[in-house]
Amino acid sequence: MAAVVLCVGHAVQDFVFGVHELPVAAQKHRATSFTSVGGGPAATAAVAIARLGGRARLAARLGADPVADVVTAELAGHGVDCTFVRRFAGCTSSLSAVMVDAAGERMIVNYLDPSLPRAADWLPPPRATGCGAVLADTRWPEGALAALAAARTAGLPGVLDADRPIPTDRAVLAAASHVAFSHEALAEFTGEPDPRRALEIAARGLDAWCCVTVGAQGVHVLADGRHQHLPGHRVAVVDTLGAGDVWHGAFALALAEGRAELDAVRFASAAAALKVQRAGGRAGAPTRAEVDAFIASLPE
Amino acid sequence: MAAVVLCVGHAVQDFVFGVHELPVAAQKHRATSFTSVGGGPAATAAVAIARLGGRARLAARLGADPVADVVTAELAGHGVDCTFVRRFAGCTSSLSAVMVDAAGERMIVNYLDPSLPRAADWLPPPRATGCGAVLADTRWPEGALAALAAARTAGLPGVLDADRPIPTDRAVLAAASHVAFSHEALAEFTGEPDPRRALEIAARGLDAWCCVTVGAQGVHVLADGRHQHLPGHRVAVVDTLGAGDVWHGAFALALAEGRAELDAVRFASAAAALKVQRAGGRAGAPTRAEVDAFIASLPE
Repeated sequence: MAAVVLCVGHAVQDFVFGVHELPVAAQKHRATSFTSVGGGPAATAAVAIARLGGRARLAARLGADPVADVVTAELAGHGVDCTFVRRFAGCTSSLSAVMVDAAGERMIVNYLDPSLPRAADWLPPPRATGCGAVLADTRWPEGALAALAAARTAGLPGVLDADRPIPTDRAVLAAASHVAFSHEALAEFTGEPDPRRALEIAARGLDAWCCVTVGAQGVHVLADGRHQHLPGHRVAVVDTLGAGDVWHGAFALALAEGRAELDAVRFASAAAALKVQRAGGRAGAPTRAEVDAFIASLPE
Repeated sequence: MAAVVLCVGHAVQDFVFGVHELPVAAQKHRATSFTSVGGGPAATAAVAIARLGGRARLAARLGADPVADVVTAELAGHGVDCTFVRRFAGCTSSLSAVMVDAAGERMIVNYLDPSLPRAADWLPPPRATGCGAVLADTRWPEGALAALAAARTAGLPGVLDADRPIPTDRAVLAAASHVAFSHEALAEFTGEPDPRRALEIAARGLDAWCCVTVGAQGVHVLADGRHQHLPGHRVAVVDTLGAGDVWHGAFALALAEGRAELDAVRFASAAAALKVQRAGGRAGAPTRAEVDAFIASLPE
């Protein structure tokens, strides 16, 4: 029986326009290509989990609009359970215009409807979903807080994908049993560019296993007052889009399967290393067999 | 019985993101508002015609995708007949990301799927649609050519909304019985900034009534070798979005009703003058009663 992860947070549709050059002010520009693709940290992590053979349930807020149909159809196509994706009348689903130039540089304009209800009282109890771990992003702090607190109460791992914006409500971080910072978010949050020192600052007062992912430089872990560093993988980077989401999905899935944290980090870093070698966010997420083969190929 | 206009050309969905400032290269920007609204010269002219009490039939190419549902639902809601809006499997409906800053400046990124079939052999004969005039934009030159040529054969007015890009195939202009240039397109097309002189250059070899609209400066007409100038209206401009489309829709509708060209120009310019005093493109299109009252209020 595959392990289940409840993913709580953001689902968005990205309208991606290929352009020769990124647009400049107040002109009309012609795109050379177009694709519509789903995004959002929690939603893309859910897709990564499904690709890795896990079972992903997504809890997210959408509007009652055609974009919501597109978002859920794509997720369902990836095998993500959308039972707890809720549509709110009168609201707009989150969406982004993404302009990508020939060099792969991205200009993103995102809209998150401020009228989407913040209340998270409709989230299912983690145990009721059969999940072995909860993963939350920071785009819906009330949802993250409720789901991570419920996971803690239930004795399940609760992973916070601590990317920008880090919630101003410190209770969100405090609720997580595992906090995985991105390097940029951690540096901004603490004002400290050094990842080890920043991790110490951020971890103060938290009852959590903490780490910060620093791309190819690997992962710094701070747990029970002890630092550890797990090196990254040297691979030919094609596209980093979605790499963080794949990492978080794989990490939460490994915890849901009962694996120890350092083993989960190795699994997640291998999954992300495979992802960055491929174009596309969700399209580049690896399978379990690919991750296992990659790990088996590494020197001892 | 209301007059019918067959509108041939472009229907697009605009995803409009309100931003504090227009985005700059390769960053992530947060939008403060979002609206999804239909556009395209032919489609918005069709809406203007319906608002003026005429009957508009739109012939346009869309993809077989969710955007097509949104486009046609909005048009149908405005009373536009979409029988000849055709969806092509494997194609993407035209769509734009529009970023509007606090000062109303617009950055537009548009995608028109090059795989949309260019052939126009499926367009209905004008008489079969009961139409009294044809209006075509330049975004689908093959469609414009076929529809305008068929109108000429049928002895019906065929109006070309000659905005950028002016078709490189001169046969499109030659097929029209009425060519209404925008000032910018005419200047670019002829290399001549003076509207009267540019009109003379552009009209060479055309068997057509020609005009160029110069915003508040009014309309220059060149017909049977004679120039005329109809002054514009001094109004408080709120939003010029869609003003040209309203002008063309009203002009074609007046011709379909059997009115003479100069009368049609007066009607169209009044409709456009009302439109620019209101926010929104389609939302700002006036009713017949409003146009009649505006004309009645003008000094003799």
